[in-house]
Amino acid sequence: MTDRCSDLGERELVRKITEILGIGERDDCAMVEDGDGWLVWTTDILHRKSDFPGIATGWQIGWMAVAVNLSDVAAMGAAPLGLLIAAAIPQDAEVAFAEEIFRGMNDCARRYSTRVLGGDLDSFDELALSGTALGWVEKDLVLRRRGARPGDLLCTTGTLGSAGAGLRVALEAEGRGEMEIGDPDLRALTKRLLLPSPRMEEGRALALSGAATSMMDNSDGLALSLFDLAEAGGVGFLVWEDQIPVDPLVSEVAEGRDDALALALYTGGDFELVFTVRPDLIDRARQACDFAVIGRVLEEREIFIEADGVRRRMEPRGYQHMKTPKPARLHRSFSSPPQK
Amino acid sequence: MTDRCSDLGERELVRKITEILGIGERDDCAMVEDGDGWLVWTTDILHRKSDFPGIATGWQIGWMAVAVNLSDVAAMGAAPLGLLIAAAIPQDAEVAFAEEIFRGMNDCARRYSTRVLGGDLDSFDELALSGTALGWVEKDLVLRRRGARPGDLLCTTGTLGSAGAGLRVALEAEGRGEMEIGDPDLRALTKRLLLPSPRMEEGRALALSGAATSMMDNSDGLALSLFDLAEAGGVGFLVWEDQIPVDPLVSEVAEGRDDALALALYTGGDFELVFTVRPDLIDRARQACDFAVIGRVLEEREIFIEADGVRRRMEPRGYQHMKTPKPARLHRSFSSPPQK
Repeated sequence: MTDRCSDLGERELVRKITEILGIGERDDCAMVEDGDGWLVWTTDILHRKSDFPGIATGWQIGWMAVAVNLSDVAAMGAAPLGLLIAAAIPQDAEVAFAEEIFRGMNDCARRYSTRVLGGDLDSFDELALSGTALGWVEKDLVLRRRGARPGDLLCTTGTLGSAGAGLRVALEAEGRGEMEIGDPDLRALTKRLLLPSPRMEEGRALALSGAATSMMDNSDGLALSLFDLAEAGGVGFLVWEDQIPVDPLVSEVAEGRDDALALALYTGGDFELVFTVRPDLIDRARQACDFAVIGRVLEEREIFIEADGVRRRMEPRGYQHMKTPKPARLHRSFSSPPQK
Repeated sequence: MTDRCSDLGERELVRKITEILGIGERDDCAMVEDGDGWLVWTTDILHRKSDFPGIATGWQIGWMAVAVNLSDVAAMGAAPLGLLIAAAIPQDAEVAFAEEIFRGMNDCARRYSTRVLGGDLDSFDELALSGTALGWVEKDLVLRRRGARPGDLLCTTGTLGSAGAGLRVALEAEGRGEMEIGDPDLRALTKRLLLPSPRMEEGRALALSGAATSMMDNSDGLALSLFDLAEAGGVGFLVWEDQIPVDPLVSEVAEGRDDALALALYTGGDFELVFTVRPDLIDRARQACDFAVIGRVLEEREIFIEADGVRRRMEPRGYQHMKTPKPARLHRSFSSPPQK
């Protein structure tokens, strides 16, 4: 029998690909040496079926395509140098819709002090936007997935679960044939999903603080990010359940406390930064940006979550952040060790 | 009536997009200032329907995705720093086929002294590969689309028409349900289409020679490249028909001399470099690489082709380098003026 990609599963396929390409360690960006710094460089491809719910406007779609790439630059502690976007737009799309997409891109890039410098235009049957972002960070300040040391504090920016809850709201509205969300709280949740705010200022300030020891964005959800950070750093984590900053609005959607927690742990799309901080420098980190301390780094290579004095193992699962017709959606970034 | 992208046409849509993004001049790559040089940076998205004929192997598909991006870096006179690839692979694709794609990418990158440093993996219904390549060139050596001066000599590397003829061979084979081309000459033509050789060494050597005044690759065909160079430089061209280096193999496929010439002028996919050279430095350029002198730069903003002493205007048309079910295929790269 012939092996199909869907049989193999995403992680195993990425393992094969990175082996072929000679890529070892993975970070949110690839790194290219540039004088006394690193060029950090990422690409993310999004498409209609998996990434843009029906209620998303053209402007929101454009914003998202830029935001998800900038988030990877932020996760390295880098300042952005610009973006390119390859846009595959269906030929029967309305011109006004296409223009809105590019306005959304432009507005997102400029909001974060950078620009879309160019790209490629093609037509596909399915709308797809493939972005690439470039950034720069000083060699001694770069933040990578590896670097956490036992005893470091585990931290996250912002609140969690909003995008997952927002997706639930969006899919339910779509199911009812509604294109707008009337309730302001529910609309706020869908905005967290559709208009991610990459943590550019926070990522850069944390790098400049010198207090953080490792970092990545939580685009695949907090749980999977912790598994990636643990693997890269050869460490483990203890997460304090009651310290996880679940977005209070999530309770409007979740079916009870456990469901809200699941949205915060296993939902992709929040685009917050997850990082570790040297305990003696926690005050310096607090001067860089607001964040929550949600746990600490363990020497033992296990990830536990603790509630009411009871520890259980965290599950290595990530929310499939968009429903797809097939179960085993592949979506995984891979990048290389530093290149000279 | 609502305007659709297909009604508007590709050039007008790109004009709108570049206006929204604030992009003025166009080059093969966007440019980001980097010390005493420029980072040059491009993205190209390819997909099954328009870019990969049925006879293409996975390895060839991967090679092509890397080669087309490197060609843009070559066209700026830059040395490559690396590539990223966002790959959207159908879930029912065979694992062996997916692996071949990445082997082709890896082999092409390494052939041209660079590497695929990372990427993104997703699954689409249609196979799509979105690449991005980064390069570096000294500020005083960069070659752009603008720069040609009246009297400069117009030149091209390699031979022309091969990819167009190769496409004809490939489509005819596909029509007959054949997956392999038996005749060695015809197979050589399809290889020019399926395994483009980006002119990395030539582009870099021409930049280092200091003899070239403007350059781009001919990915959309010689004719369209000349219109782009003319527009960027505010000049015109006189092309000597009998000096155009039509690939001799093209005659195996073309219906007579005019058809062979049309394949050389209006066919995309050859990935040669078209450039202008100061006439007093032509010997220095010849030390950089092999090329043909095919005409000269005019002050008058017109593009003529001359045969037997008779001048006619060149048509601004580019061969649609892959057949698509719809006529108005959009495919156009756009990039920005230099960014500091």
